[in-house]
Amino acid sequence: MRSVSILGVGQTPVGEHWERTLKDLAGEAALAAIADAGVDRIDGVFVGNMLSPTLNRQMHLGALIADWIGLRGVEAVKIESACGSGGSAIRAALLAIASGVMDVALVVGVEKMTDTPGHETTAALATAADADEEADQGVSFVALNALLMRRYMHAYDWRHEDFAPFSIQAHANALGNPYARLREAVTTSEYVNARMIADPINLLDASPIGDGAAALVLAAQGASGGGRTPVRLTASSVATDSIALHGRREPIWLSAVERSAKAAYAQAGVVPGDIDVFELHDAFSIMAALSLEASGFCERGKGPRLGLDGEIGLGGKVPIATRGGLKARGHPVGATGVYQVVEVVQQLRGEAGPTQVEGARVGMAQNIGGSGATVITHIVHGG
Amino acid sequence: MRSVSILGVGQTPVGEHWERTLKDLAGEAALAAIADAGVDRIDGVFVGNMLSPTLNRQMHLGALIADWIGLRGVEAVKIESACGSGGSAIRAALLAIASGVMDVALVVGVEKMTDTPGHETTAALATAADADEEADQGVSFVALNALLMRRYMHAYDWRHEDFAPFSIQAHANALGNPYARLREAVTTSEYVNARMIADPINLLDASPIGDGAAALVLAAQGASGGGRTPVRLTASSVATDSIALHGRREPIWLSAVERSAKAAYAQAGVVPGDIDVFELHDAFSIMAALSLEASGFCERGKGPRLGLDGEIGLGGKVPIATRGGLKARGHPVGATGVYQVVEVVQQLRGEAGPTQVEGARVGMAQNIGGSGATVITHIVHGG
Repeated sequence: MRSVSILGVGQTPVGEHWERTLKDLAGEAALAAIADAGVDRIDGVFVGNMLSPTLNRQMHLGALIADWIGLRGVEAVKIESACGSGGSAIRAALLAIASGVMDVALVVGVEKMTDTPGHETTAALATAADADEEADQGVSFVALNALLMRRYMHAYDWRHEDFAPFSIQAHANALGNPYARLREAVTTSEYVNARMIADPINLLDASPIGDGAAALVLAAQGASGGGRTPVRLTASSVATDSIALHGRREPIWLSAVERSAKAAYAQAGVVPGDIDVFELHDAFSIMAALSLEASGFCERGKGPRLGLDGEIGLGGKVPIATRGGLKARGHPVGATGVYQVVEVVQQLRGEAGPTQVEGARVGMAQNIGGSGATVITHIVHGG
Repeated sequence: MRSVSILGVGQTPVGEHWERTLKDLAGEAALAAIADAGVDRIDGVFVGNMLSPTLNRQMHLGALIADWIGLRGVEAVKIESACGSGGSAIRAALLAIASGVMDVALVVGVEKMTDTPGHETTAALATAADADEEADQGVSFVALNALLMRRYMHAYDWRHEDFAPFSIQAHANALGNPYARLREAVTTSEYVNARMIADPINLLDASPIGDGAAALVLAAQGASGGGRTPVRLTASSVATDSIALHGRREPIWLSAVERSAKAAYAQAGVVPGDIDVFELHDAFSIMAALSLEASGFCERGKGPRLGLDGEIGLGGKVPIATRGGLKARGHPVGATGVYQVVEVVQQLRGEAGPTQVEGARVGMAQNIGGSGATVITHIVHGG
């Protein structure tokens, strides 16, 4: 298969962009990525989005966004796998280039979530769960994650405050990222005393929703724009699992994360210790812990230990959420997977500002749809 | 790029399946296609669907359907380009196989539209149009097509009854397809006197919605199952246009159809006259006429002439809607593009029963999202 590089990246700040449309946001990120790449052609547009059918009453984002940014006529499509939509769109673009039918593709992840009342957003997010067996029972998405966290705390004897470093570190990193939504430090005391949402998940365990868009220009290796040194996509892997938590043999082990990560390591010829930056899917603190374990960065049940030992910081063994993560950069759900890869590229280019991981050479981004039902892992090597 | 074949097909009848879930329908078609193909492995699942986020409160259909049919763990994703979702899912599966990362892929198109009140379905379908510039004005999807039909009748001096053959022929063909929703003959008098929906589109100009699923097993050429002789996908092409009708230079010329069809002819090395069966996107009579013209089967403005001259019948110059088309097989929107290719395969295998086009060797399926905004054309050659 043809190798694929990332030529350019673009993003909007994550926030409440009430004065701007979905198209505006997608366009800003897309045009920034194209300018960054320095290319003068795009053969295909791959849009990652989850909620526009419900929250924005707009489907058909492929053709819509292609036209909006001046690419009317080009091949275009929308990809959805709940909160894994952004990663899935990258995957689709990569396969299109690898097939040889196109040389340069644009990936845009976009989401606009803050124009609607909160209960509508909550109901829309629940469509990532199983409608017949979970959502119909009135379980929200945060409640499902609360069940996971409670079970995990019981199984491995962790206290709630042991998860504090995931939140604190993400917020600390976001201070150095102008595109992050929550640029404010958080203390252990604030974490412990934050308002409860779905016990044991409190406000500082949960990532904030947001409006935002991120974009990448991918190209067949060897292709080059007038822009920066390309970085190489050395692995791309997707695995799935039961959507309903009760359908899994062991709900607190993310088997799709394990399979997706292992396949990615094999493709890239690396081991977890080679990963300098890991942008993981910390939609909730519990997901950070579970992702670290199933991706092979620590033993089963030991995820919080990495945080407590200071190993998830910028100088640690496995720097995560280096630009704020879902927790503090924000989680515009269908765009998140693209933000993650944009941030990995910033790190590999040495453009991560105050959050730069020194000497970062290999980065991994892992995007998750549902509570581990679709997992997309990409590994990127610096130029 | 690696060549791709179709090893197996499956489908459910189109209808009102109130007693069955979305998963049930998808599963029935998928398992039928896998059995027909005789394969013992599937490397990836590509789901085409438009409306499940709104009408069924269920996203994340890739992982959901993969798990439901016993393929938990496999790569899976959902693709959406409004009513072109099915064709786009076929395209995505084809690119994945062509890239070399997988050898056998399952495509499932599924839609469940009849459990909800009609006004909700109408509102959901309007999300295929531009939310900011069309739907926000209160224009429904049928109203947009009515504008096109009125303009076309004015420009080329056609009367409404000149479109009758599109409807009559589709209904006649559906009589021979046990999977069709409307298995009932229609006369010119019935056509002319049908209840008006959005002048000049009446009930017999419009395709019925429906619940249904269709599936295909695609494989790298050379791969074979225990099943039927494979047919070859010899062309696959996508083109887009402005979603909003007012954004197009000439609304009654489907330029994305023209570009998609021309690219497909070039890939397959054929001309329109070589096409023995053309499953076109006759969501409305006007779309049948416009598709025939822009695909090169007649001159501009002459689409209805083909019907009036008897050239769209099973023995005509360009047999269309041979199994009933969208008009009478029914239009479960995200599944339609997959139904079209299933029907082309039936024709090329000589399994189209009373609607068999004698000696059919080359078939074309053309799926459209919006009123010509995303056009996916596939050409298939018999074994």
